[in-house]
Amino acid sequence: MAAGRLSPEDAACRLADLPYANLGFARVDTLREARTGVPEVILAERKEPDEVVAIARRLLDAHGRVLVTRASERAALAVQAWRPDAAWNRRSRTVHIDDRPPTPRIGSVLIVTAGTSDAGVADEAAETADFCGSRVERLADVGVAGLHRLLAQLPALRASEVLVVVAGMEGALPGVVAALTDRPVIGVPTSVGYGISGGGFAALATMLATCAPGVAVVNIDNGFGAGVLAHRINARAAGGRSA
Amino acid sequence: MAAGRLSPEDAACRLADLPYANLGFARVDTLREARTGVPEVILAERKEPDEVVAIARRLLDAHGRVLVTRASERAALAVQAWRPDAAWNRRSRTVHIDDRPPTPRIGSVLIVTAGTSDAGVADEAAETADFCGSRVERLADVGVAGLHRLLAQLPALRASEVLVVVAGMEGALPGVVAALTDRPVIGVPTSVGYGISGGGFAALATMLATCAPGVAVVNIDNGFGAGVLAHRINARAAGGRSA
Amino acid sequence: MAAGRLSPEDAACRLADLPYANLGFARVDTLREARTGVPEVILAERKEPDEVVAIARRLLDAHGRVLVTRASERAALAVQAWRPDAAWNRRSRTVHIDDRPPTPRIGSVLIVTAGTSDAGVADEAAETADFCGSRVERLADVGVAGLHRLLAQLPALRASEVLVVVAGMEGALPGVVAALTDRPVIGVPTSVGYGISGGGFAALATMLATCAPGVAVVNIDNGFGAGVLAHRINARAAGGRSA
Amino acid sequence: MAAGRLSPEDAACRLADLPYANLGFARVDTLREARTGVPEVILAERKEPDEVVAIARRLLDAHGRVLVTRASERAALAVQAWRPDAAWNRRSRTVHIDDRPPTPRIGSVLIVTAGTSDAGVADEAAETADFCGSRVERLADVGVAGLHRLLAQLPALRASEVLVVVAGMEGALPGVVAALTDRPVIGVPTSVGYGISGGGFAALATMLATCAPGVAVVNIDNGFGAGVLAHRINARAAGGRSA
Amino acid sequence: MAAGRLSPEDAACRLADLPYANLGFARVDTLREARTGVPEVILAERKEPDEVVAIARRLLDAHGRVLVTRASERAALAVQAWRPDAAWNRRSRTVHIDDRPPTPRIGSVLIVTAGTSDAGVADEAAETADFCGSRVERLADVGVAGLHRLLAQLPALRASEVLVVVAGMEGALPGVVAALTDRPVIGVPTSVGYGISGGGFAALATMLATCAPGVAVVNIDNGFGAGVLAHRINARAAGGRSA
Amino acid sequence: MAAGRLSPEDAACRLADLPYANLGFARVDTLREARTGVPEVILAERKEPDEVVAIARRLLDAHGRVLVTRASERAALAVQAWRPDAAWNRRSRTVHIDDRPPTPRIGSVLIVTAGTSDAGVADEAAETADFCGSRVERLADVGVAGLHRLLAQLPALRASEVLVVVAGMEGALPGVVAALTDRPVIGVPTSVGYGISGGGFAALATMLATCAPGVAVVNIDNGFGAGVLAHRINARAAGGRSA
Amino acid sequence: MAAGRLSPEDAACRLADLPYANLGFARVDTLREARTGVPEVILAERKEPDEVVAIARRLLDAHGRVLVTRASERAALAVQAWRPDAAWNRRSRTVHIDDRPPTPRIGSVLIVTAGTSDAGVADEAAETADFCGSRVERLADVGVAGLHRLLAQLPALRASEVLVVVAGMEGALPGVVAALTDRPVIGVPTSVGYGISGGGFAALATMLATCAPGVAVVNIDNGFGAGVLAHRINARAAGGRSA
Amino acid sequence: MAAGRLSPEDAACRLADLPYANLGFARVDTLREARTGVPEVILAERKEPDEVVAIARRLLDAHGRVLVTRASERAALAVQAWRPDAAWNRRSRTVHIDDRPPTPRIGSVLIVTAGTSDAGVADEAAETADFCGSRVERLADVGVAGLHRLLAQLPALRASEVLVVVAGMEGALPGVVAALTDRPVIGVPTSVGYGISGGGFAALATMLATCAPGVAVVNIDNGFGAGVLAHRINARAAGGRSA
Repeated sequence: MAAGRLSPEDAACRLADLPYANLGFARVDTLREARTGVPEVILAERKEPDEVVAIARRLLDAHGRVLVTRASERAALAVQAWRPDAAWNRRSRTVHIDDRPPTPRIGSVLIVTAGTSDAGVADEAAETADFCGSRVERLADVGVAGLHRLLAQLPALRASEVLVVVAGMEGALPGVVAALTDRPVIGVPTSVGYGISGGGFAALATMLATCAPGVAVVNIDNGFGAGVLAHRINARAAGGRSA
Repeated sequence: MAAGRLSPEDAACRLADLPYANLGFARVDTLREARTGVPEVILAERKEPDEVVAIARRLLDAHGRVLVTRASERAALAVQAWRPDAAWNRRSRTVHIDDRPPTPRIGSVLIVTAGTSDAGVADEAAETADFCGSRVERLADVGVAGLHRLLAQLPALRASEVLVVVAGMEGALPGVVAALTDRPVIGVPTSVGYGISGGGFAALATMLATCAPGVAVVNIDNGFGAGVLAHRINARAAGGRSA
Repeated sequence: MAAGRLSPEDAACRLADLPYANLGFARVDTLREARTGVPEVILAERKEPDEVVAIARRLLDAHGRVLVTRASERAALAVQAWRPDAAWNRRSRTVHIDDRPPTPRIGSVLIVTAGTSDAGVADEAAETADFCGSRVERLADVGVAGLHRLLAQLPALRASEVLVVVAGMEGALPGVVAALTDRPVIGVPTSVGYGISGGGFAALATMLATCAPGVAVVNIDNGFGAGVLAHRINARAAGGRSA
Repeated sequence: MAAGRLSPEDAACRLADLPYANLGFARVDTLREARTGVPEVILAERKEPDEVVAIARRLLDAHGRVLVTRASERAALAVQAWRPDAAWNRRSRTVHIDDRPPTPRIGSVLIVTAGTSDAGVADEAAETADFCGSRVERLADVGVAGLHRLLAQLPALRASEVLVVVAGMEGALPGVVAALTDRPVIGVPTSVGYGISGGGFAALATMLATCAPGVAVVNIDNGFGAGVLAHRINARAAGGRSA
Repeated sequence: MAAGRLSPEDAACRLADLPYANLGFARVDTLREARTGVPEVILAERKEPDEVVAIARRLLDAHGRVLVTRASERAALAVQAWRPDAAWNRRSRTVHIDDRPPTPRIGSVLIVTAGTSDAGVADEAAETADFCGSRVERLADVGVAGLHRLLAQLPALRASEVLVVVAGMEGALPGVVAALTDRPVIGVPTSVGYGISGGGFAALATMLATCAPGVAVVNIDNGFGAGVLAHRINARAAGGRSA
Repeated sequence: MAAGRLSPEDAACRLADLPYANLGFARVDTLREARTGVPEVILAERKEPDEVVAIARRLLDAHGRVLVTRASERAALAVQAWRPDAAWNRRSRTVHIDDRPPTPRIGSVLIVTAGTSDAGVADEAAETADFCGSRVERLADVGVAGLHRLLAQLPALRASEVLVVVAGMEGALPGVVAALTDRPVIGVPTSVGYGISGGGFAALATMLATCAPGVAVVNIDNGFGAGVLAHRINARAAGGRSA
Repeated sequence: MAAGRLSPEDAACRLADLPYANLGFARVDTLREARTGVPEVILAERKEPDEVVAIARRLLDAHGRVLVTRASERAALAVQAWRPDAAWNRRSRTVHIDDRPPTPRIGSVLIVTAGTSDAGVADEAAETADFCGSRVERLADVGVAGLHRLLAQLPALRASEVLVVVAGMEGALPGVVAALTDRPVIGVPTSVGYGISGGGFAALATMLATCAPGVAVVNIDNGFGAGVLAHRINARAAGGRSA
Repeated sequence: MAAGRLSPEDAACRLADLPYANLGFARVDTLREARTGVPEVILAERKEPDEVVAIARRLLDAHGRVLVTRASERAALAVQAWRPDAAWNRRSRTVHIDDRPPTPRIGSVLIVTAGTSDAGVADEAAETADFCGSRVERLADVGVAGLHRLLAQLPALRASEVLVVVAGMEGALPGVVAALTDRPVIGVPTSVGYGISGGGFAALATMLATCAPGVAVVNIDNGFGAGVLAHRINARAAGGRSA
């Protein structure tokens, strides 16, 4: 019988690496950064503002920085009541605090949007990738209804390590972008649209179905997931972990 | 009470225009040409070959020409057994007979395909529009994965009266085409694809969701419907009925 | 190797035709009219009122007219604060300004509705086609539950260049209309209905599935798309561009 | 506490009415006729031919007649091996035996089809209603693409007690029929079609969504269910049970 | 060529039977009663209160009675402002006026509900069938979670001409009822439920899929359609039109 | 003919066991406890507060305890107006009263949640199982994004008779738990999530599709159903009925 | 910081319990029985017959017994070529070998089917539960179309520890059974049916939506999963592990 | 007006970079490698074998290597008839030819499968990434039903630049992997499964819904797309283009 490559002792070491903080209502994964390169982030949706603050305190203690996503106005104000200097971006619904000394950002993540309505989701991706330690740039409003706006930006597309392409309605932009560059493309469908494109399902299907290879897709409106993945790719390309 | 604009007598005239031939198993609509500009066409699917031939005979008597769509090999051979000169296109599964003197085709319908796999549906559209009396041209394999192939053909796009754009997988081509011209665009999604694009539903959704106005869509794989509609538009533009 | 029909120089000319205005938050496609026959139109949904006004100013400068669709009350009032003479249609949620000398409308677009609940979407189609330069007429409340109301209007159906047929619930009207005329028919499903017809998907499916050829369909509630396409068809039939 | 209207003794009588025959692999419901007016019918799908024959023997003993639906060729031949006089309709895939003296059929059930492809399902409805004891008439190929064929048959529609309307593709016919008569209409969607209408779901949705009241719908291709329901309605109208 | 059974002159007579009232925003189908046995009914959803009143006036003039369904509080109060004696049922959202001399109701329609939450839809069916002229009875809260409540009511089930069975969640009741009687059963799925049964689609599917024949189904929450169909069946059974 | 195993007399006895209380608007199933081990529970959704109180009185009389689920604030306050000592859990939306002498709980039901957002549904399951008579324990926030939190709790998983695992978003937790223990696992998908996981359908599909056997699933957000089933399993394991 | 309840050392022990056999193309989980009470079972679908035999050899060595599910005829014959005494059930597509001394089965699992077409899935559940060590009994063909067949079997339902209820088409049986007993009920939807019930989705939805608590559901046609879960429940009730 | 960053002359240069070969039935994109880093690959599905060979010849001339995916046996044999040394992998349905001198592969792509049934899709990903120039390693059969098999391989997961995780049924593996490493994860759902997981849609939804960030998803069974994207990421990390 061929055993696995790790001895049981090694496996034990893996597990022993992974404690957590039990707050009663939540178990905070304080070693997630060691494991995945990015600290645990707080998804504020369906959490009470005081729960958000309690988890944020714990994470800030452990990591010197903390990011809250999908923050309602109530949650954001609760965080600012505790830490008035917390940075709140209303459009992306994110709040973050960073008590570490300024760190240079690494590599280059370019976030591209098809229309002006996709800006909130793009902002969430940008805030997240920046929090992870990536340098982020933006390219707005280059959807396929005016293709020349995109073609004029080919050098910018080709100057980044990874592209996050955010689009609602028919979601054709990521495939078109992937066909024009050799960079990895992360498609983010948005729930912008109505009728057949309501809820973002048409955009999601289009991005998955694209015949241009080099595209992968995250959940509808999931700017956070796209930001983390973009950072992971960018960090590999930049030759190291986040700052 | 404001009555409708037609007197009952006028309405009666409308109805009186519309007799049909009762074959027992089918009621052949011999005056459809007078009403819609195009004779009844035989959808061969789920019909027995002898039923197809019987209806074809009746329609040929009435109009001097007949078109069969979705013809199986058995149905096509049955028609050719009766009329060895019937023209059978295997790829589009159409058979037609035209006993009228040669008629010049009118205007210009351009049928565009995204990939080589879409050719069967494009052929059905072309056979149909030609049968109706339109001049048909083709532009193949210009999908969005190699956009320059399309951009090189802008003059051709702009030289036709109406564009039929056939695409499977993500179905982005009709929107891109509509953004580059001022011609009416008919999108035809095809069932080419797998996974999320299996059956053509992703392509259908993309075409309906496109943010480029000027596109309307027919059912998946419905080359016949696209061909008739293209002819109707082309006939209006060319200033008259089919030849 | 057979090169494309255009030389690279020609292709360059195509692209060089296509500048745009970068407003920072949006890239305004000021040459869309030259390319597609219709200026860029502002979809106000998910845009801030001041963004709508900024884009509107730019487009009015470039074209002498501007159309805003899906305008909320806030957006409409913001436009009127800038230009009190802007024409706001509450039911269709459109606002438009036209500073050009009066232009005669061309051809004939007939917009048909199945029920009184479909009027908002029909209005959006009408405002759009008129803005593009087409002459628009209306025929209301002729759904299939009272077929004689439609049959009494056959001459009107046959007097237009193109028919836009708006229907919710089961969406059977476009197929019935297409079977009675030789004109192109654009079906517009509406989100009127509940249960199986909630959201307009049953009407959409019916229109795509119709066995009467000559119908193509736009997205649910997409009066704007139907209006542009109707104008494109009408403009071909009327022998020229919009006025 | 207000008890139910039946005493427990009465309820016992209800149950005592309802024995069955245990064949080991099946429990034959020999008193279903007493309870519902129609004997148990054998759905042959996924049953072995010898199982079909064994159940058929038992039901014939109990009722003097038996009907098999969804019979494969193998199942039909197995029944005929036992009873060479069994009547097999290939198109409807039904087999029946009736050893009772000839019985007059009651009332009038009219079965209407939109296209020639719907004939198999219509046949199943007809065989079933006839087996139940109803007089059945047929009206074929009157779909909405040639409305005058239907309008010419209004007296026939109005001369029956109940209408079964069978249609695939867009399924608009039952609503149109219901708007022209005061008779109950049973819509039967069929799986004829492709793309959006593949599998019969578009037709089903259309029939449920119709704005013409007076229509109810059975499952796709369920000619058997439509036949039983039509008989139940017809039997009430004709003033008694099946013959 | 075998012509249809009607001469064109006869067909003309049919059409000539069918005038209507053009109110500008609506075409009121004042002869619908002659054609279908039931006057046009006003679906108030998406109509302005003053439009509802205008149509109601016209219909009351023509028929001496009028029914409004899906009436909002605003619409209902607008009708009562015009006619303070209009009967408004809040739970079913119906309003009706009947200026005719009292008419005896005919036959028997039994409306059965699975749970107390289905009462609103059941009320709409009851108001509608009563308006049409049928005698209506009710049987509440006999869902399959307490089957004995239903079994105790078998005599009531068997004493009516037609059964309307209203159920949400899993929607199993119509099939169980149909297996216990020989009466026609109309299933009405309701949007009561959550998760997989949210919106009523699970109940709809269950009712269509039932293996107990004798059931047909209307759209989710469509008490109105069920009421009209029940009346049509009841009227045939009772040997005449509505009173 | 082999009759069923029960004589008709026995069957009658079964039915005679099953009276109910007719409140007019509801039929209260007072003997449900004798039949299923658990008294009828009141689903407050879509019931008026006074209806909830009336049914609660009746059930309390019959059983000495009563549970209300999906109680709105209005309904909960109405119950407390009648019985100020009624226990209301806002997060689970349950209210209960128990006038019996304290009863020890039996066995062990462990309720596991993936994230803090699933707590409301988990609370409903806990309140229900406790009401039925089971001892309930909780394990919170052990989702698969931090697997070590779960692995650290294996002894707790293996110390219970049955596991209820509540998870939204991708719903992977029940399968992972089932692969680590030999206890029965009840998966409860929650409607926590957005995009593809909105409404809980992705979590439901994941739980049904899991390749780890030993999991069964209840409807989305159906903590009540999970609680009853967990109690049924626990009661069998603990060797008797609820206390 | 409150650490988890297990020390890292304990967690290491857990992992150290779990080696496996690496066959190159598969990793055989030979300690699954210790972990979950049931040895790994071979899902033969998409495996080559020789792969099935190789894994079966390994599992038989480790456990003295082996079960193969979804075995094609080819796979079953390959197993029998190796071990001619392997027991092959064609209808359930299972093969098993048991080299242990005869073991008494424990407790009682009752498997109930709605119709004769559900027998294959029921057989898979029965073979699986028996393999796990449970005593299995069967009750066939008691669907809701003949409810008295079920009512006559109440004592049998109440004599088992757990009920597996297998049903296709509308899938109403599990809810009806759960309302009549206090035992846990596992619903197994089958893919028997057509139209809306094709593929088993209507039955699945019905079972999840049932208002009778005490039911949980496994995937469509998943007799294997139901068998394992039934054994887990039965083993708890019988007071110990499988024999 | 801020113009785009490219002058029209620059844009022209972009376009001038992009010629193609017109084969009549196909336009071969011979400069795709220059644009995207990977030559055009032939999707053989729905192409005739002789078409596949003709395109392969052209691409081999241009690039010195060619890859065919989704090759039927007929297509593969046709390629081998032309080039007997073409390498055909039956399980992945790929054929490739490489006439270049041997090139070292760069970086590291690890392809992980949940079960043995996912091997075909994983092979397609491996063949593709290798063709692009990446070094590929494999890790098979580590699904979540035996989690220790995965935990034992953590060092391997963490030693690669990018992970491709292939899984059918519930598709939980990519999320679990992403939570254990800091590498980018590409999820590939497969169509392995039945019932709710049939066609791969449950696995797709699970992967999109995962709460573990760092995962993006390609279409069901799209090993090719995953292979190209993995190469793009790996090439960035390895500091250069493919070899």
